[in-house]
Amino acid sequence: MDKILRIDMSAEGGPGISEQPLGEYAGLGGRALTSAIVSKEVPPTCHPLSAQNKLVIAPGLLSGTTGAMTGRISMGCKSPLTGGIKEANAGGQASQVLARLGYAAIVIEGKPQGDDLYKVLINKDGVKIVSDNGLKGLGNYKTVEKLREEHGDKIAVISIGPAGEMKLAAATVACTDPELRPTRHAARGGVGAVMGAKRVKVIVLDDTGLKMRSPKDPEAYKEANKRFVEGLRKHPVTGEGLPAYGTNVLTNVINEAGAYPTYNFKEGRFAGAAKISGETLAETEKARGGIPTHGCHRGCVIRCSGVYVDKDGHYLTKQPEYETVWAHGGNCGIDDLDAIAQMDFLDDDIGVDTIEMGATIGVAMEAGLAKFGDAQAAIELVKEVGKGTPLGRILGSGAAVTGKVFGIERVPVVKGQAMPAYDPRAVKGMGVTFATSTMGADHTAGYAVVTNILKIGGDVDPLSPQGQVELSRNLQIATAAIDSTGMCLFIAFAILDQPDTFQALIDMINAFYGLSMTADDVTALGKKVLEMERDFNRRAGFTAQQDRLPDFMKKEPISPHNVTFDIPDEELDKVFSW
Amino acid sequence: MDKILRIDMSAEGGPGISEQPLGEYAGLGGRALTSAIVSKEVPPTCHPLSAQNKLVIAPGLLSGTTGAMTGRISMGCKSPLTGGIKEANAGGQASQVLARLGYAAIVIEGKPQGDDLYKVLINKDGVKIVSDNGLKGLGNYKTVEKLREEHGDKIAVISIGPAGEMKLAAATVACTDPELRPTRHAARGGVGAVMGAKRVKVIVLDDTGLKMRSPKDPEAYKEANKRFVEGLRKHPVTGEGLPAYGTNVLTNVINEAGAYPTYNFKEGRFAGAAKISGETLAETEKARGGIPTHGCHRGCVIRCSGVYVDKDGHYLTKQPEYETVWAHGGNCGIDDLDAIAQMDFLDDDIGVDTIEMGATIGVAMEAGLAKFGDAQAAIELVKEVGKGTPLGRILGSGAAVTGKVFGIERVPVVKGQAMPAYDPRAVKGMGVTFATSTMGADHTAGYAVVTNILKIGGDVDPLSPQGQVELSRNLQIATAAIDSTGMCLFIAFAILDQPDTFQALIDMINAFYGLSMTADDVTALGKKVLEMERDFNRRAGFTAQQDRLPDFMKKEPISPHNVTFDIPDEELDKVFSW
Repeated sequence: MDKILRIDMSAEGGPGISEQPLGEYAGLGGRALTSAIVSKEVPPTCHPLSAQNKLVIAPGLLSGTTGAMTGRISMGCKSPLTGGIKEANAGGQASQVLARLGYAAIVIEGKPQGDDLYKVLINKDGVKIVSDNGLKGLGNYKTVEKLREEHGDKIAVISIGPAGEMKLAAATVACTDPELRPTRHAARGGVGAVMGAKRVKVIVLDDTGLKMRSPKDPEAYKEANKRFVEGLRKHPVTGEGLPAYGTNVLTNVINEAGAYPTYNFKEGRFAGAAKISGETLAETEKARGGIPTHGCHRGCVIRCSGVYVDKDGHYLTKQPEYETVWAHGGNCGIDDLDAIAQMDFLDDDIGVDTIEMGATIGVAMEAGLAKFGDAQAAIELVKEVGKGTPLGRILGSGAAVTGKVFGIERVPVVKGQAMPAYDPRAVKGMGVTFATSTMGADHTAGYAVVTNILKIGGDVDPLSPQGQVELSRNLQIATAAIDSTGMCLFIAFAILDQPDTFQALIDMINAFYGLSMTADDVTALGKKVLEMERDFNRRAGFTAQQDRLPDFMKKEPISPHNVTFDIPDEELDKVFSW
Repeated sequence: MDKILRIDMSAEGGPGISEQPLGEYAGLGGRALTSAIVSKEVPPTCHPLSAQNKLVIAPGLLSGTTGAMTGRISMGCKSPLTGGIKEANAGGQASQVLARLGYAAIVIEGKPQGDDLYKVLINKDGVKIVSDNGLKGLGNYKTVEKLREEHGDKIAVISIGPAGEMKLAAATVACTDPELRPTRHAARGGVGAVMGAKRVKVIVLDDTGLKMRSPKDPEAYKEANKRFVEGLRKHPVTGEGLPAYGTNVLTNVINEAGAYPTYNFKEGRFAGAAKISGETLAETEKARGGIPTHGCHRGCVIRCSGVYVDKDGHYLTKQPEYETVWAHGGNCGIDDLDAIAQMDFLDDDIGVDTIEMGATIGVAMEAGLAKFGDAQAAIELVKEVGKGTPLGRILGSGAAVTGKVFGIERVPVVKGQAMPAYDPRAVKGMGVTFATSTMGADHTAGYAVVTNILKIGGDVDPLSPQGQVELSRNLQIATAAIDSTGMCLFIAFAILDQPDTFQALIDMINAFYGLSMTADDVTALGKKVLEMERDFNRRAGFTAQQDRLPDFMKKEPISPHNVTFDIPDEELDKVFSW
């Protein structure tokens, strides 16, 4: 994993392929690598759909090894949604396979003339790029099915759906899970639109004949990994809550905390929460013959994923995540799990971000396009996106554009990106992260819920403005570092709570690369990543004024706590002062 | 004209009305006044459709007097299109009448609960605001017709069409001309959407029983006005070209210069230009019994307006302006004057900016929604806006949103506002104005065509990067000052060329107000206005990165001169260094 694959879609006579050593990017993986390349090579003021933008796909530092939880893959570019730098990461098999194929990153550059759609094939024999217009307009599920027929089932697939082809700003890049289903998405910020602008429909990865990546010190790596896994297994969140109920275990927790955005961020508690909670979801799956506990990639020991089936036991979609259940559920006043599952499937198939879509439908409902709680109407709206009708294109462009087109003032976005499932007025640490993250409103950028609500790594009152800036700062730094390892972010629950588990992670990196990093080095890496990203955004024209929540959240109190977002702007501006 | 009328649409129990002296705003008119109030009173980061935004409507310093050309009215707010400060001004009768009613400005604040639509009535007896839901959804023409039936034909009307009611970012505020037709629009930047957000459909002004405003020194005023009028009459542009052919006299001139943006800014010359030129337009009007020479307000001596009729001599629309003819014509590859006239009428009736609409249709054509040159398809697209279909709402949100929704990279906007009818690569002084104006791409903000092409006030080669920054700077300063007088900007042709005409204008102001202003004071006023506007934009989050043309204009040469926009960013950043 010491080389970069560059694909130049502008090259005359068809896409150009070249390989180069990591060079100045050596030692970086995942988000650190995507952000370094984007920050250095993409002109910050270029049009996100132009030839000058680049899509960088990078496994993490430990991806492709025997280490647990190392299956995240980062996708970076200038975002068509926010106009700033973007890294969105996904689970699934792609990260491990790409790492074993020896690539620290794929960089897709340029833009072809004409309308052809391309397929990239990478295996032990090399890289091939062929046009394949038979894939045009196919959903991610059909796309993968077609590739399975052609290439067998030992592959991992990275693909875009119709939304990516249409270059919609909510378009995702999908990665297949171990069962070759396109259910794991680099979802946020429109990375799929950038892949679509470059006319790349799929990247087919096949590591047949290749081995696990070897650590410098195999014994030490194995031992550290063992301690790491033990740490994850003994922690109540990663060892019990997430495996049993998936991420949707949060519905009851966040609803109880009064921080569950309901009816387009009008209220903080949803009467129908129990009907769509993780507990209900797992029960439903069990009763119908679905799978409540499942890993999205091989080597996962948390196994927060699952399979959701219909009443007859037929596959409907992967177990919908908490954010998805909220976005299409409480945020739209919908308490029907089957309807939510159907929208989850449609989102994955069309290739759009479930958070952005749910928030967008909430705004559309506020605009009167459908009634809050009308599940069938919501499903029809998602279908419009797939059809590419004018309405579908509006919705697929995200909540900010939808608000603008329909003249709606209450639009829950920061830097043009929709807010996830935590009302920033009632979980103020999350509000700081939403406001200041380089990524736009992004819960994974600094998940303050851990300390605000779950009381992991400390206890900061979610309703008070005190301590939130420091909390968000520390979490944003830690996250930027974790996102660079290829580790699933959910390890944070255990490593924040258990110093020996954190040390085990550092020991894994050291054993693998023959380094002697300390916790301070991890912090330094996180800061370096954030600084690169902030610098890009500054050069793209962002100022402190973009590090703000929407006005209505400062003026409109949310029930049940009747709180507004009251952290002063001057405090927000200190998040990156270290 | 020494008081401000404040209308608070948030007030409980119906809109509140109050009057106050000019106070700290004394001495300001037109754009100087709207920008001062917006800059001081509107939070720069507020949502443009929120209660916190204000719509300020201000006649100029000399409006309502016997002075020639004093009929412009300024509308200011935070722009829903650009997100920055906005002043858009219009001709018509409103400025004169409002000034005679004694108001230096109307400030519409707040936002009502509920769906009622309001009518504001102002006459010598005072101000009344009543809800009038019978006006809902009416086009500007039907709206005015209804008001004429109710209030007689001595009124001047300020109104919004369906686009304003829908809060679309390309929505205008219409003002009636002397024949009570809603043909003069404060068109740019979505000022109509702000009026719509405040639920004000019309403002009916009636100055019956009121007199012309009296100068401090009536004799000196009369004498200066006489010299001013003589100056306008003797200048070839204001005395001959504009009266004979209207603003559309420019089609042949700009096309000849190779700066006529054709097919969405793909080429610089349009093969069909002669069929839609001002000469052809005037001939057509004469032959059919229309009116080629007409004043948009009483007291106009340039009379660049006209009346366009169909083959049977029936009124079709006012004589379309150059920008409109270009936007719906060459920019869309359309060379059919009747079709352009029909779109002009539709734009006026629906209440959308003709420049924004034409540029938007150009982008839509590039997206494949219609073929370049297909006049009927273009007409249908404009009609969509009026119907408020999803497609219509996209288009009515302007070129930037349309480009985003349809994934188009070549979108001719700055700060989200569409470029007018001059390719900035071939008239580089115009490019500097488009890039740096506080208003977004706006030709009226610093009309470098005068010196680049018409060779008035000097001679700066339009194709060279040399001298353009200084040219644009000086014109932007002069324009900001002229926009504050209530004078039509077309006086600039004469006052830039003829020092005695410029002096006559200063003498008019001095005689009216008993001042002793010099040319330096005029320059100082212009700078002050620009500084207020820049300051607002800075506080709204704008940086130098927003003072840039779209990337494609720096990379893609335009025929026939095969030039790109090559003025370095560092030069652009010096425009406001004085």
